[in-house]
Amino acid sequence: MKNFIFQNPTKLVFGKGQIEKISELIPQDVNLLITYGGGSVTKNGVYDQVKNALKGRSYTEFWGIEANPRVETLRKAIVLGKQKNINFILAVGGGSVLDGTKLIAAGIASDIDAWDIVLSGVAEKQIPFASIMTVPATGSEMNGAAVITREETQEKYGFGGDYPRFSILDPEVTYSLSEHQVACGLADAYTHVLEQYMTTPGQSRIMDRWAEGVLLTVIEIAPKIKENPKDYDLMADYMLSATLALNDFIRMGITQDWATHQIGHELTALNGITHGHSLAIVMPGLLRVLKQQKFDKLLQYGERIFNITEGSDDEKVNKAIEKTEEFYRSLGLTTRLSEEGVGEETIETIARRFNERGVAFGENQNVTGEVAREILNKCL
Amino acid sequence: MKNFIFQNPTKLVFGKGQIEKISELIPQDVNLLITYGGGSVTKNGVYDQVKNALKGRSYTEFWGIEANPRVETLRKAIVLGKQKNINFILAVGGGSVLDGTKLIAAGIASDIDAWDIVLSGVAEKQIPFASIMTVPATGSEMNGAAVITREETQEKYGFGGDYPRFSILDPEVTYSLSEHQVACGLADAYTHVLEQYMTTPGQSRIMDRWAEGVLLTVIEIAPKIKENPKDYDLMADYMLSATLALNDFIRMGITQDWATHQIGHELTALNGITHGHSLAIVMPGLLRVLKQQKFDKLLQYGERIFNITEGSDDEKVNKAIEKTEEFYRSLGLTTRLSEEGVGEETIETIARRFNERGVAFGENQNVTGEVAREILNKCL
Repeated sequence: MKNFIFQNPTKLVFGKGQIEKISELIPQDVNLLITYGGGSVTKNGVYDQVKNALKGRSYTEFWGIEANPRVETLRKAIVLGKQKNINFILAVGGGSVLDGTKLIAAGIASDIDAWDIVLSGVAEKQIPFASIMTVPATGSEMNGAAVITREETQEKYGFGGDYPRFSILDPEVTYSLSEHQVACGLADAYTHVLEQYMTTPGQSRIMDRWAEGVLLTVIEIAPKIKENPKDYDLMADYMLSATLALNDFIRMGITQDWATHQIGHELTALNGITHGHSLAIVMPGLLRVLKQQKFDKLLQYGERIFNITEGSDDEKVNKAIEKTEEFYRSLGLTTRLSEEGVGEETIETIARRFNERGVAFGENQNVTGEVAREILNKCL
Repeated sequence: MKNFIFQNPTKLVFGKGQIEKISELIPQDVNLLITYGGGSVTKNGVYDQVKNALKGRSYTEFWGIEANPRVETLRKAIVLGKQKNINFILAVGGGSVLDGTKLIAAGIASDIDAWDIVLSGVAEKQIPFASIMTVPATGSEMNGAAVITREETQEKYGFGGDYPRFSILDPEVTYSLSEHQVACGLADAYTHVLEQYMTTPGQSRIMDRWAEGVLLTVIEIAPKIKENPKDYDLMADYMLSATLALNDFIRMGITQDWATHQIGHELTALNGITHGHSLAIVMPGLLRVLKQQKFDKLLQYGERIFNITEGSDDEKVNKAIEKTEEFYRSLGLTTRLSEEGVGEETIETIARRFNERGVAFGENQNVTGEVAREILNKCL
């Protein structure tokens, strides 16, 4: 096990009827900004719950943070926040609203341009922020990361910084999600775990078990959610699993990968494929190309997650990769670029961008532009 | 899943050579008290590491916090702490030193007698404290709980309060533990999980998986540690598992039990049986008496932890309980009161005490004095 420092200060407020707690959770003496997405919260009742909880208090609203939040949009919120001396932000929405809010919080606290903050990789300072998370997927509600898109150049990069002061998760809010949103959320959570698990074996038995625990849970609940998308306990396990998939709890003392995300971000930036969906396309191809490197962990994964115990080791590993792609498809997602009308042109653009950035990704930092091309060709 | 609020602010600093980090982790401007146990830290090198890291700084030392820390001892530290205007405490030792330190931190911050704080169940205020944890077992390094003994009345009760500001865990420190200490630590961690897991089934799939993940890890590493008690990765997994067994991570949104601990504390208070050992004695008996109540969870546990799939449900459940007792014995611990020379007299005292306290324990609050007697008779 590698040395590590772990600290996750976010207060997680989970369950039915918890949204009203914002009245006590948000300090009384702050200049509050509330950030929203495109308006789904006005349909699922969350907006009314927020308004009722904050009755009698004054605050500013900022609407229109889009899926894959754009720096061009967020800069407007930063200007507004500075004008109004905002010193606390509540994000109400999915991972995109919260990710965007993390950059707004950094932009208000700094004189650096928002895109430069993203490119630097780390927000040195942020005003306090919190969330009401309505879409279980990104884990942003309990981590310090955010991913931002620059529309004019079709770029999408992540940065790190503070954790939310609190996040409220009410599983009932998920009842209004579409089947595609749930599928992408489950794929996102599943892939987050694989990015932290499908690495050098034998680093930590307990971290392996916890990663496998999230995978087994997601696999168990996914078909049941299709049948009963308003079953409270199912959606509660989905929501909690998505949080635990990316809140540092399953990566203590171990190496990580994240090459699938780097490639997936490009597919989203260039072709608009929903984030979770992009991961479902890239991960099987990546496992096929990096099979030898990940061989021993794939064996363990196949046995513990899919009960694959028959055949040669090579057959077992191939089967584990097939079962992974089957799982993504079982969610109702396509897993091939060709099914999404994406082809050679995008692949070449991504390979060129990786080469231009001059960095290689993945646990062993060997996913260069050439390897990314090879992976994407396997995803056709 | 039940509604819950989760927040664990402790900074976990884990790995080789991390003890020297106290020089930066402890604020510069505090009046520091360092608390120790009986002196094992002078033999395993920890004391020297602390002294070197704090060279040039002034601080007060308090020695002699015993196993099952006594309020009579801790009151002396509270007097000293008030005299010296102590406003930060570093506990260096095992769970007892840290549990004792949690009460010292409460006593210094209050005018209430230390035992009354324990009896109240909650420390309303504590000065900040942190730890260098040398014995993986109690999880005290990352939770808000402490258990204190009153020697003059042979009573042992717990209370809750703040979490450590930070805890440093260096697995190399465990190399000097005795085989019995390791056995008791593993039994303690295993039982902590069972207290949060062996309850009403179907409350949370992901919490079940994580609890099972700790159990499977402890079962896997226990025999290996016997063979290689100085294997770094083994001891790292042991140390991390003990922390994760009782830091709130596996009890989100679920009910808990803790009747085994209530009975075990009495055995420790009355007969001096080491805490982890007392749990190894009580848990199998408790499962036998409460078999029907815990039937469905025992079935799941038997299948997922011990691969018990043959026979009738009743046979499977009996087998799961047998395997649990076998596991404790495999650590090198006895699992019967008669083996420890404890008999009827102690059982009657415990039953009478439970009745006098007028409370019943366990998930369903049905472990009365009578049920405790029945459980202990099964442990003979």
